Amino acid sequence: MDFNIIRAARAILNVTNLEESRRFYVNALGFVETESDDETIYLRGLEEHIHHSLVLKKSDEPSVEVISYKVYSEADLDSLDRFFNEKGFLTKWVEAGTQKALGRALRVQDISGLPIEFFATMDTVDRYLQRYDLYRGAKVQRIDHFNCAVRDVEKAYNFYIDELGFSCSEYTTADDEKIWAAWLHRKPTVHDVAFMNGVGPRLHHIGFWLSDPMSVIHTCDVLASLGYGANIERGPGRHGLSNAFFLYLRDPDGHRIELYNGDYLTSDPDFKPVKWDLDDPMRQTFWGHAAPDCWFNEASNVLDVHTGKLVTTSDPLLEKKKPTIII
Amino acid sequence: MDFNIIRAARAILNVTNLEESRRFYVNALGFVETESDDETIYLRGLEEHIHHSLVLKKSDEPSVEVISYKVYSEADLDSLDRFFNEKGFLTKWVEAGTQKALGRALRVQDISGLPIEFFATMDTVDRYLQRYDLYRGAKVQRIDHFNCAVRDVEKAYNFYIDELGFSCSEYTTADDEKIWAAWLHRKPTVHDVAFMNGVGPRLHHIGFWLSDPMSVIHTCDVLASLGYGANIERGPGRHGLSNAFFLYLRDPDGHRIELYNGDYLTSDPDFKPVKWDLDDPMRQTFWGHAAPDCWFNEASNVLDVHTGKLVTTSDPLLEKKKPTIII
Amino acid sequence: MDFNIIRAARAILNVTNLEESRRFYVNALGFVETESDDETIYLRGLEEHIHHSLVLKKSDEPSVEVISYKVYSEADLDSLDRFFNEKGFLTKWVEAGTQKALGRALRVQDISGLPIEFFATMDTVDRYLQRYDLYRGAKVQRIDHFNCAVRDVEKAYNFYIDELGFSCSEYTTADDEKIWAAWLHRKPTVHDVAFMNGVGPRLHHIGFWLSDPMSVIHTCDVLASLGYGANIERGPGRHGLSNAFFLYLRDPDGHRIELYNGDYLTSDPDFKPVKWDLDDPMRQTFWGHAAPDCWFNEASNVLDVHTGKLVTTSDPLLEKKKPTIII
Amino acid sequence: MDFNIIRAARAILNVTNLEESRRFYVNALGFVETESDDETIYLRGLEEHIHHSLVLKKSDEPSVEVISYKVYSEADLDSLDRFFNEKGFLTKWVEAGTQKALGRALRVQDISGLPIEFFATMDTVDRYLQRYDLYRGAKVQRIDHFNCAVRDVEKAYNFYIDELGFSCSEYTTADDEKIWAAWLHRKPTVHDVAFMNGVGPRLHHIGFWLSDPMSVIHTCDVLASLGYGANIERGPGRHGLSNAFFLYLRDPDGHRIELYNGDYLTSDPDFKPVKWDLDDPMRQTFWGHAAPDCWFNEASNVLDVHTGKLVTTSDPLLEKKKPTIII
Repeated sequence: MDFNIIRAARAILNVTNLEESRRFYVNALGFVETESDDETIYLRGLEEHIHHSLVLKKSDEPSVEVISYKVYSEADLDSLDRFFNEKGFLTKWVEAGTQKALGRALRVQDISGLPIEFFATMDTVDRYLQRYDLYRGAKVQRIDHFNCAVRDVEKAYNFYIDELGFSCSEYTTADDEKIWAAWLHRKPTVHDVAFMNGVGPRLHHIGFWLSDPMSVIHTCDVLASLGYGANIERGPGRHGLSNAFFLYLRDPDGHRIELYNGDYLTSDPDFKPVKWDLDDPMRQTFWGHAAPDCWFNEASNVLDVHTGKLVTTSDPLLEKKKPTIII
Repeated sequence: MDFNIIRAARAILNVTNLEESRRFYVNALGFVETESDDETIYLRGLEEHIHHSLVLKKSDEPSVEVISYKVYSEADLDSLDRFFNEKGFLTKWVEAGTQKALGRALRVQDISGLPIEFFATMDTVDRYLQRYDLYRGAKVQRIDHFNCAVRDVEKAYNFYIDELGFSCSEYTTADDEKIWAAWLHRKPTVHDVAFMNGVGPRLHHIGFWLSDPMSVIHTCDVLASLGYGANIERGPGRHGLSNAFFLYLRDPDGHRIELYNGDYLTSDPDFKPVKWDLDDPMRQTFWGHAAPDCWFNEASNVLDVHTGKLVTTSDPLLEKKKPTIII
Repeated sequence: MDFNIIRAARAILNVTNLEESRRFYVNALGFVETESDDETIYLRGLEEHIHHSLVLKKSDEPSVEVISYKVYSEADLDSLDRFFNEKGFLTKWVEAGTQKALGRALRVQDISGLPIEFFATMDTVDRYLQRYDLYRGAKVQRIDHFNCAVRDVEKAYNFYIDELGFSCSEYTTADDEKIWAAWLHRKPTVHDVAFMNGVGPRLHHIGFWLSDPMSVIHTCDVLASLGYGANIERGPGRHGLSNAFFLYLRDPDGHRIELYNGDYLTSDPDFKPVKWDLDDPMRQTFWGHAAPDCWFNEASNVLDVHTGKLVTTSDPLLEKKKPTIII
Repeated sequence: MDFNIIRAARAILNVTNLEESRRFYVNALGFVETESDDETIYLRGLEEHIHHSLVLKKSDEPSVEVISYKVYSEADLDSLDRFFNEKGFLTKWVEAGTQKALGRALRVQDISGLPIEFFATMDTVDRYLQRYDLYRGAKVQRIDHFNCAVRDVEKAYNFYIDELGFSCSEYTTADDEKIWAAWLHRKPTVHDVAFMNGVGPRLHHIGFWLSDPMSVIHTCDVLASLGYGANIERGPGRHGLSNAFFLYLRDPDGHRIELYNGDYLTSDPDFKPVKWDLDDPMRQTFWGHAAPDCWFNEASNVLDVHTGKLVTTSDPLLEKKKPTIII
């Protein structure tokens, strides 16, 4: 392929109340607020040198406008445009300057119907990595990955691996050896994106990376102190799959955020993807804890990049199986 | 009162398979094995300078032989003997040398029917506090407290406070302001013993103190690696009551162990006991997580100090109310 | 003895610039500011339920007005007054209401010439133990101990043990078996006060307790971010003596603060004081690091409780020996 | 360039006593011993799926045989061979099977005279990432980088960037804006190799990555317990440059090992290298601590890949300046 996707880079979430969202993301979780106005808040992690990795837009109802990948160069955008068009996908250009701090961006509904975007250029800002005096709450370091529920995981898997150049680090199979869920990466961590069998296309969660496990514990304490106990959906715990030390939160609109520490280096081509059986109890939670039903059933609806309307969801191809749907 | 109880000091648990117990307590949790024979294993924490704080005895069925408190001097034992006899309790002396490493001990069934013991003298041993090369698993530091289910918490509370000289750090009340559960201490931490409304007398758990929260996380990982995932019953989490960062485990016989870090200093007489409503969701788990049913319903049976037979249990006086029974 | 000293409870430090001090103690270290005016700042740790444990008073030059111990009851104050007078010490009463939030207090120059104070009553306030949203910097939990340089350690040791009821947890001896330094406690931790051979009487440092070792690391990062790198005098490291994980800081006036985590329970009368040789390299820093000269030579001058003037210092009785003076 | 270097992958150290080395690396630091014989020990980190990342060879005197980089494919090795030959470097092939577990390897003395090696294939083994029951000491996760003292940093910098495809994350300049030290990477972390102005060519240290900062603290405690206090050369501390939380150790032969946690993602081409002034006190140690002289002056000698003899060292081009030489 003649394009180079670097990594999962940002998401745009529609939220119903900016003040509520700011209180959650900035005051409680410690995101850095780069800039904001009456309609939008731009957030980044403490180690990020780019303008933002999360955009919260005021809207009538919660949804996901787009999830975005950074590519190596502007030329990669043209190559991706050609590639998608040749494959019969309808792309859409968003010109430079249209989106705050962003160069031109290419949007398309991917093979599962997820609204994805590619861009090469975003304004850079001062990195706060060593401004420890500003560390608050979860001390969020950077965006790490997207996790999406899709109707046909194997189709998504093949498209991202064969056509977009992703590699698989770990995956889960059902009894018939069908791929039930898969963790795919461009940067050499466990994932930039994961797909799991479920009602889709929907965004299950956005993963943000923390610098150490104690920050996960402290986050729980801070959230509880601020009255956000009910927003702690699952964890802290260790995923068998990925080895991540995790915490799942629901923001005030129900969008799910994973705070995440752990991971490992996946740079080597001879690293064999780790296979997990759908029924291995240590797969989801290494320590054996069950996850709540809501974690399996609920996810954020996504928008059509062309119409701006909600994308219709479908039931998954494979069996929905609670103890096994994803991590 | 003319006796001085120092602290919760040790327990004797009957277990059905010493090898299974050793694998769990020594290999997985990192207790120090001071001494053992075919019938008994003597364990201590890394900072303990006394011979043991936990005794595992081979038996046909799991039960609790006794929970023991250390007193200041031999004279305190005589005073306690007089005190209990005057109150109509039948005491029993276990002479020095009868129990390994222990001076003479006074046993009695307490006001709730719990088998308790007092001793002043135990052999001392080398402390392994700074033998970090021997630290394993949970790196258990020392015994901290006993938690017991009893039929009538208020009666136990009054007896321990008024007659035995304990102080209350925190307590829980039901709607009618009756005491539902209480945390009582002699050493200036949150507790040496807690009582909660439940089918009793039974031992709910023994709490051991760890040196830092990361040791709790590492314990989960080690337990899962060794196949003990199912033995992790609850947590890790933060108790609202006591502020402890906790993990509850079930040993191979079902005895419950709490690994515990946090706590605070309770030395001051002007410290007012913290009152929690039975229905405050942050009381049990500060972060809002629910505890599993088994945690509420299951506990270890205790023996009669005179007959060695199981003590019959009774239903509690106050309502059994799941979300609120204890921490 | 017919009085009961509970613990090290507060200190009054004279500082030259309240704003500078506030920036250091509140903004950087995360002390809670209970109350303040143009002349004084009252600080406490996050778990403390009393009005303050540290008082900063505006003054022309830095010094220590007094270090204070809390006693069990008002009657203990009268007993202490009698005791000191009988021993020939000149005491001074500070009536209730004279000092903010404090009941009546008894002051005296102790046997080493240190200005000490006893009180039974201080106003209580809301404890912030579970206000994790307010945790900042070092997340200081509570005052733990005083460390003082004195001319004759053995004299101080005998007085505090024999006359005031302290116990010794650890001590250091010189070649001739003379006591070079000693750690003494009333509450069952390693110490409430330590004495070491040095130019005295001076206050070497006040120790504050942190909840976990990671808070020590985070403190260094926050201090460096705020330009306080030069205020980090020693550490982080592990003391062999006491097993504490420590960090020594100098405040803007040069007063030394120890941030401290670790310690162990010293409740048992059969715990034998740990003896260290002055030349054991692991005594001071378990990991073998040397401490800087300033840490050995510099300390805060103290005032006379009657005249308010600086107390004259004398050289110590035993040899000053750098690698061994104290921890 | 038509080759793809993936990452720093392994080193071969000559040591004088295998048993001493095993005690240090395996017993104290917790490396996994994959395999060994009378002449050699093969070690790896807990997350590594390859046979080894560190080889210890019995020898008469300590030295560095080679430092190795993993490339994407066998074809890359041929391309590198052509490249070096065209540039006038004399390469040497080590055939597959000659080195335990390794495919064919290409060796060459690099532009600074350092013995480097490239390989594409190494036997894979079971990863122990989730064998937490085997975690010991430092719980070393994986090799991270090499740090080398060279005579002409700017020459090395240009060669690795322009010819070998490395990127620069951070660098230090002297007063005249000459590059004094540089951190270069292929994998998107701060570095795979760093060069600093010093007597060279020598290997200053090998960096290994730990999973969390508490493991650094625990390592110090374990080392001290085992009598390795004198082997702790510097730290724990935070580097300003790289933001790493570090600990420097000297192995029984004096080879320097860095244990390392922190780092950040350097995947983006628009990330601008961070420039540090040689005299910025926070550059080396963010907290302001000085490093010991030995850390600046001592390093491991390297061998000639053709003759196996020690490579002669030269003084550096730029001034040797203690507070600034490297991190």
